[in-house]
Amino acid sequence: MHTLRLELGERSYAIHSGAGLLQDAEFLRQQIREKRLFLVSDENVARHHLAPVEAALRKSLVGRLILPPGEQEKNLDNLKQIFDALAACGIGRDGALLALGGGVVGDITGFAAASWQRGIRFYQLPTTLLAQVDASVGGKTAVNHPAGKNLIGAFHQPACVIADTDALATLPDREFRAGLAEVIKHALVADREFLTWLERRAQALKQRDPETVAECVIRCCQIKAAVVAADERELGQRAILNFGHTFGHVIEGAGGYGEWLHGEAVAAGMALALELSRQLGNIEVAERDRCLSLMMALALPVLAPDFPKSTWLEWMARDKKSTSEGLRFVVLAEIGRAVLRDDISEQQLRDTLNWRPMDCQ
Amino acid sequence: MHTLRLELGERSYAIHSGAGLLQDAEFLRQQIREKRLFLVSDENVARHHLAPVEAALRKSLVGRLILPPGEQEKNLDNLKQIFDALAACGIGRDGALLALGGGVVGDITGFAAASWQRGIRFYQLPTTLLAQVDASVGGKTAVNHPAGKNLIGAFHQPACVIADTDALATLPDREFRAGLAEVIKHALVADREFLTWLERRAQALKQRDPETVAECVIRCCQIKAAVVAADERELGQRAILNFGHTFGHVIEGAGGYGEWLHGEAVAAGMALALELSRQLGNIEVAERDRCLSLMMALALPVLAPDFPKSTWLEWMARDKKSTSEGLRFVVLAEIGRAVLRDDISEQQLRDTLNWRPMDCQ
Repeated sequence: MHTLRLELGERSYAIHSGAGLLQDAEFLRQQIREKRLFLVSDENVARHHLAPVEAALRKSLVGRLILPPGEQEKNLDNLKQIFDALAACGIGRDGALLALGGGVVGDITGFAAASWQRGIRFYQLPTTLLAQVDASVGGKTAVNHPAGKNLIGAFHQPACVIADTDALATLPDREFRAGLAEVIKHALVADREFLTWLERRAQALKQRDPETVAECVIRCCQIKAAVVAADERELGQRAILNFGHTFGHVIEGAGGYGEWLHGEAVAAGMALALELSRQLGNIEVAERDRCLSLMMALALPVLAPDFPKSTWLEWMARDKKSTSEGLRFVVLAEIGRAVLRDDISEQQLRDTLNWRPMDCQ
Repeated sequence: MHTLRLELGERSYAIHSGAGLLQDAEFLRQQIREKRLFLVSDENVARHHLAPVEAALRKSLVGRLILPPGEQEKNLDNLKQIFDALAACGIGRDGALLALGGGVVGDITGFAAASWQRGIRFYQLPTTLLAQVDASVGGKTAVNHPAGKNLIGAFHQPACVIADTDALATLPDREFRAGLAEVIKHALVADREFLTWLERRAQALKQRDPETVAECVIRCCQIKAAVVAADERELGQRAILNFGHTFGHVIEGAGGYGEWLHGEAVAAGMALALELSRQLGNIEVAERDRCLSLMMALALPVLAPDFPKSTWLEWMARDKKSTSEGLRFVVLAEIGRAVLRDDISEQQLRDTLNWRPMDCQ
């Protein structure tokens, strides 16, 4: 097991990752000591992973809510369902929530914990690659609004993160691949050397070689923890982790939540963000195509849907990252280093949206 | 105009109080500079105070929501309405919300601001005595859940507080009186000398003498600001401001939100908390009755409803201040100084609930 500490003063916490953690009842009981616990999961995850967690914590687990799977479940109605259940189970200020699942479960459970009684503790037990390398670390919690993704939420750090890499073995292929998009993102925005590491291990990753996957999770958590520790509430540099997300959120939202997996939308969004970086003269065509090749090698989509330009522009204007001054984009200054740009013109955006990856033309 | 600063590091803000502030367009424009503003108010308040605020800020005010009046409106459905309106008006991260009204409007608007895009700025423009002396200062925001008051919320400090004491002239008598309960609370928990001041000015207060009321508002804000600055997130001592509220929340909730005004319920709750303090041997009968006399002089209720004991105990157990270990009560250690007690037995509670104020026996 690897343990990493995210240093945030009194909100610091540990990120544990390793094989078999969800099966280790003693470890779970050591980490999760509250006397009243409420668990949230989804149907797919519960089928594989609920039993050992419930068995380990049965003395303190007073209730659970199992949601249907999918991004469209991350909404205010289900949030209200969680609140109703917390009230019914008598979860007080010294109770805690457990989020057993992927990014959807982690985000909605985290926001419920942030708001219940103005904030109680919660534990992230991420079971998807996306959640293990990204969503469960850093304290961003939210639900979606019909007008946009994650429009309603809070910064609320978990009490700890327990990432069992064995859980990744039960993931559907499509979901595992989608998680690799966020893995690549970490490399592109902050760690050029990690990109080379990924290129060398593309086949091993695709085949989910356990050791490769475990090391990959740890490296992503290290990158993310360093970025978050420097800028917890995303007042500045943390926003580089949104690379590909401004485009990606449009793909998810305008495509109808649930059609594209978040990671898939981020992959196609990163392709556009790479092209924008190239148009700005920050990276070469060959560098852009090198990154696209890695995504394609991992079977990630690099071609965004052909929405009308007006759809793109309207959805982007509604995105949280927009200000009344205009849109903010994350672009690469070079491979392995991202920067924020507030000065992208509508024409530059249109040029970017007109572009098609070579293999897809 | 008096200006007080609440010192909370990067979340510090000013509390302005004085006569005519809502009519002072230039002052409002100086304080509220965001380019996209959304206003929330209620029908009663809007009738009296919306026009000058809208006129002053018309260039930046892009939308508004006017709720029906009353505590029962502080719910998740109306919160969702606010989110829908914010999305429709395109309020982004650099927009801001205005809460023009009493505690209900301030609490729900503050929570909307805390959650929208994970937190945007908001302004408290309190128009009731309760909101000016208590609810608008300190960053507690929330909505109610059928299971209890303020169960869903956040700590989110306003960008500033603008308390126009002229607004108090338009308050219905009952609401003004209810606000005096929180005024008395400030004296009881933190300022013995202020209690004497209130006793001497009971008639002037009841008749809403403008200078007396204005001084009263400032003194309460000073007390509250000092308590909040020392313990923003209520990890400890700030909880003394909940004096009377554990009982009071039962009266509001079990009585059906809207039947009792919050301040009325707090007054009857403080009567019980005073009796509990006496039973613990902390204050004398004469001291308890001195406080009851002041409340009665200000026409505040001191007799709680005669709910079955089981109703009291169930509602208290669900209150946010409860833990799985038991209930936490705020009691007076002496007049002008409150302390927290975790060790009140069920028998002590029953004895307290059996007590009736002398004049009501």
